[in-house]
Amino acid sequence: MPIRKKLKSDIVLVETDRITMHGLDLCKDILGKVNLGDMAFLEMKKRVPTPQESVVFNAIAVALVEHGVSANAIVARMTYTGAPEAMQVAIAAGLCGMGGGMTSGMMTSEARKTGSMENAARMLQEALPDPKADADLDALARKIVKDYAPSQIIPGVGHHFHVPDDPRTARLFEIARANGFYGPYVKLMRSIAKHAQETYRKTLPLNAPGAIAAIACELGLPWQIVRGVSVVARAIGLVGHILEEMHEPMSREIQVRAQEEATAHLRST
Amino acid sequence: MPIRKKLKSDIVLVETDRITMHGLDLCKDILGKVNLGDMAFLEMKKRVPTPQESVVFNAIAVALVEHGVSANAIVARMTYTGAPEAMQVAIAAGLCGMGGGMTSGMMTSEARKTGSMENAARMLQEALPDPKADADLDALARKIVKDYAPSQIIPGVGHHFHVPDDPRTARLFEIARANGFYGPYVKLMRSIAKHAQETYRKTLPLNAPGAIAAIACELGLPWQIVRGVSVVARAIGLVGHILEEMHEPMSREIQVRAQEEATAHLRST
Amino acid sequence: MPIRKKLKSDIVLVETDRITMHGLDLCKDILGKVNLGDMAFLEMKKRVPTPQESVVFNAIAVALVEHGVSANAIVARMTYTGAPEAMQVAIAAGLCGMGGGMTSGMMTSEARKTGSMENAARMLQEALPDPKADADLDALARKIVKDYAPSQIIPGVGHHFHVPDDPRTARLFEIARANGFYGPYVKLMRSIAKHAQETYRKTLPLNAPGAIAAIACELGLPWQIVRGVSVVARAIGLVGHILEEMHEPMSREIQVRAQEEATAHLRST
Amino acid sequence: MPIRKKLKSDIVLVETDRITMHGLDLCKDILGKVNLGDMAFLEMKKRVPTPQESVVFNAIAVALVEHGVSANAIVARMTYTGAPEAMQVAIAAGLCGMGGGMTSGMMTSEARKTGSMENAARMLQEALPDPKADADLDALARKIVKDYAPSQIIPGVGHHFHVPDDPRTARLFEIARANGFYGPYVKLMRSIAKHAQETYRKTLPLNAPGAIAAIACELGLPWQIVRGVSVVARAIGLVGHILEEMHEPMSREIQVRAQEEATAHLRST
Repeated sequence: MPIRKKLKSDIVLVETDRITMHGLDLCKDILGKVNLGDMAFLEMKKRVPTPQESVVFNAIAVALVEHGVSANAIVARMTYTGAPEAMQVAIAAGLCGMGGGMTSGMMTSEARKTGSMENAARMLQEALPDPKADADLDALARKIVKDYAPSQIIPGVGHHFHVPDDPRTARLFEIARANGFYGPYVKLMRSIAKHAQETYRKTLPLNAPGAIAAIACELGLPWQIVRGVSVVARAIGLVGHILEEMHEPMSREIQVRAQEEATAHLRST
Repeated sequence: MPIRKKLKSDIVLVETDRITMHGLDLCKDILGKVNLGDMAFLEMKKRVPTPQESVVFNAIAVALVEHGVSANAIVARMTYTGAPEAMQVAIAAGLCGMGGGMTSGMMTSEARKTGSMENAARMLQEALPDPKADADLDALARKIVKDYAPSQIIPGVGHHFHVPDDPRTARLFEIARANGFYGPYVKLMRSIAKHAQETYRKTLPLNAPGAIAAIACELGLPWQIVRGVSVVARAIGLVGHILEEMHEPMSREIQVRAQEEATAHLRST
Repeated sequence: MPIRKKLKSDIVLVETDRITMHGLDLCKDILGKVNLGDMAFLEMKKRVPTPQESVVFNAIAVALVEHGVSANAIVARMTYTGAPEAMQVAIAAGLCGMGGGMTSGMMTSEARKTGSMENAARMLQEALPDPKADADLDALARKIVKDYAPSQIIPGVGHHFHVPDDPRTARLFEIARANGFYGPYVKLMRSIAKHAQETYRKTLPLNAPGAIAAIACELGLPWQIVRGVSVVARAIGLVGHILEEMHEPMSREIQVRAQEEATAHLRST
Repeated sequence: MPIRKKLKSDIVLVETDRITMHGLDLCKDILGKVNLGDMAFLEMKKRVPTPQESVVFNAIAVALVEHGVSANAIVARMTYTGAPEAMQVAIAAGLCGMGGGMTSGMMTSEARKTGSMENAARMLQEALPDPKADADLDALARKIVKDYAPSQIIPGVGHHFHVPDDPRTARLFEIARANGFYGPYVKLMRSIAKHAQETYRKTLPLNAPGAIAAIACELGLPWQIVRGVSVVARAIGLVGHILEEMHEPMSREIQVRAQEEATAHLRST
């Protein structure tokens, strides 16, 4: 059987007495020295973060962990209840619904599909491929707001609940600024939100996914991998929900109520 | 429709201008102050870790992130290739195979099903429900080795590859000791490994899952949630593999080779 | 790199102008001649069913398709809402919770974990490894009821809702009888239910999973694969729920209600 | 807590002594009378198929069941090996990679992303929303081939392996014709393939997904649900692969080989 392509992975080499990851000795250079967020950074950037990068990257990841009794959490809880012998599956099922179009609102009080963090990061990177280039951010922002006008949805802008401001945004930008990551992508994202607000004459907060997307761009994460940060963060949150479901279950009650209500109209009177 | 049970979640309250998690203000108390491992600790223990707990917990989580071109990684890579529009699903699929009996070897050079970290933690916690109790650890260890004799598999003991020692074990115990978590569970686990080695007259390293399980017990994590640490860690590792698959794909080549080899005997000559 | 083991699959050979499955030509022997249930039978038994087997196997599979607004259906609906671009994932997530211990009630009016169809099939096959052997079914049934007494749960017996009888059971047995599959496993299962009822002095219907398990044993399906019938059947049911969710959504409403109710006690008054 | 929307499901009503699905009594009207494919039809169309519809629908579903040692099958096998206690998860993981852009080749000998069955069905339904309308199919086909020229990929056309003809296509169309479902969508699909072949001056077979898509349109299935047929069919195929993996495992060998080959270049010489 012909081999068409050599298989190749540069991530880790496991030897009998040593594990080497991206050139670092797991035992000597990593364990006890880097935290879990740094390890995610290492997986994505193939090097450990600087202290400043560490603070900023961990902050955006931490901000994505917990979303309360979200659909993901309910899915994880229901799956755990159905298959408690396989907790990994409850987490996996919970992650499945983190699609490309996350819900967030814009321009209306109702929740709406809008672009996710991923879409915002893509928008920013496509508008500004080289962050060191000399760019007219204000003009770029105007163009983006105009380009998105037909869909009336701009990734990273608007929120159905956190009005007039998403409380996480200011704090995340503060952390970015204190660590030297308040650069062109953050400025572009803010400019987009400002112009959107003027154009639509509505209160349109720069939401947390938008802030996180901008900061991820500052950290040099390609937009294609940005959803990954969100997914691993949410996996952590789901562990908390599964643990709570063990002690304070809600999934069975939710299901029974839904079953009864949804089929009430079919019952013979 | 009667409500049989009130739904209740204590994890997080999201208000318009504030997000409160286990009594902490997300923006003021958490973002920029805790790292991603600490956040996982907060989900599991409902409080942020002490600095010592943070180092130790992050170390065990980090140790679980990367396993090279494991089955999980191949599954994630193949799923990504099939559905690149839904990266979360590649991670989810990759996690699905993290079943209760992870592979690790014992007493033979071959890989064998043995107990996972979860089984080791359960073994330790059931043997020593109260870590503060005055217990004869040596006697407990002897009893455990004897009890497990029929299956010839003791969770946390033995490795098909890392012989004579799993390099992560000594380092993790060093970190635990330096931070005040070298307590009865670690000692019990080491004693179990020592007695197993004597009983079976073979080189049986205390493997990393065993070391991590013992340290998780020291941190007060109930064994029921220990698999969760492993799952979120692996989710992080899978992001790295998916990113690599984008640039240096292997999944299609693996599949084509397998397809051809597996059906060669069916081909008409 | 040494090859330790040859890869081998006997299921299908795909050639340029022909596809051969278990020796049958897909185009000539299968398409247009066998139905989807027969195809599942072919995957499991490596031959097409007889007309009688076809009726019986399709009947048990069909009986497993629809369960209303079950946890599986809610999970699939929520996942679809989160990732409508990836319908396969909604089905996959919905299947994840089909764990080893499905819910069914016994001896109480409340839902209880009891053995699944898989457990019932295993119980029957372990009690009667050879269906052609001359066995005292009544004695076997008495022994099983006695053996299961400590757990108070016998797979296939009891139902929290379908009391006094599960309507599917009589019909499925009727179909089995009409097609020559009313053999020792069905009789053993009925005898178990009868003795359980006498022992516990309660109304304990032989439930549909129990009936299906017994019939699956009659069809010669090993218990290890019985869950597979249930999983593929449920996948079909989930397609219907996803289609309904497209036009008559309920997942978002369920989530919002749960979120609000579960965190009401945390709100500052 | 205000109820914003009433939950409503019309699929099934479960009562103590009766289960009613889309107005049919499960025990009296369905069990023993419809096969598994018919049940899928009932989930999608809310009525049982006519005998002709049954043959045609079952044929397209059956055609989608088995794909040999595909990525889906390898994923399911690896997941089963990692979590044999949870077979449903192996099936679920295997389904996850059935993304919107399935692999199929066109205009080159290499496998290429091209439109799936879903994309072909969408293309056909968007071109011909009303199959009873008087349409110039040839003109529609020309327009479609022209519209798709930039991407060089037309859903349903071309195959990297089944050249010059996909053997399933002729047989499926034969079944459709014999049962009265050889209508405008089939004709349009064939016309598209013909014009594509002339335009690109290459052998471009009308592939099985294209044929199935056209027939699904004839059956009146909305393109949004077409992927569902494929998913449930593949779930059935995966059961066969998991069963084979139990007796003739390949997943561990595949993983070990990949691990060794992929990291060989990292080993110290």
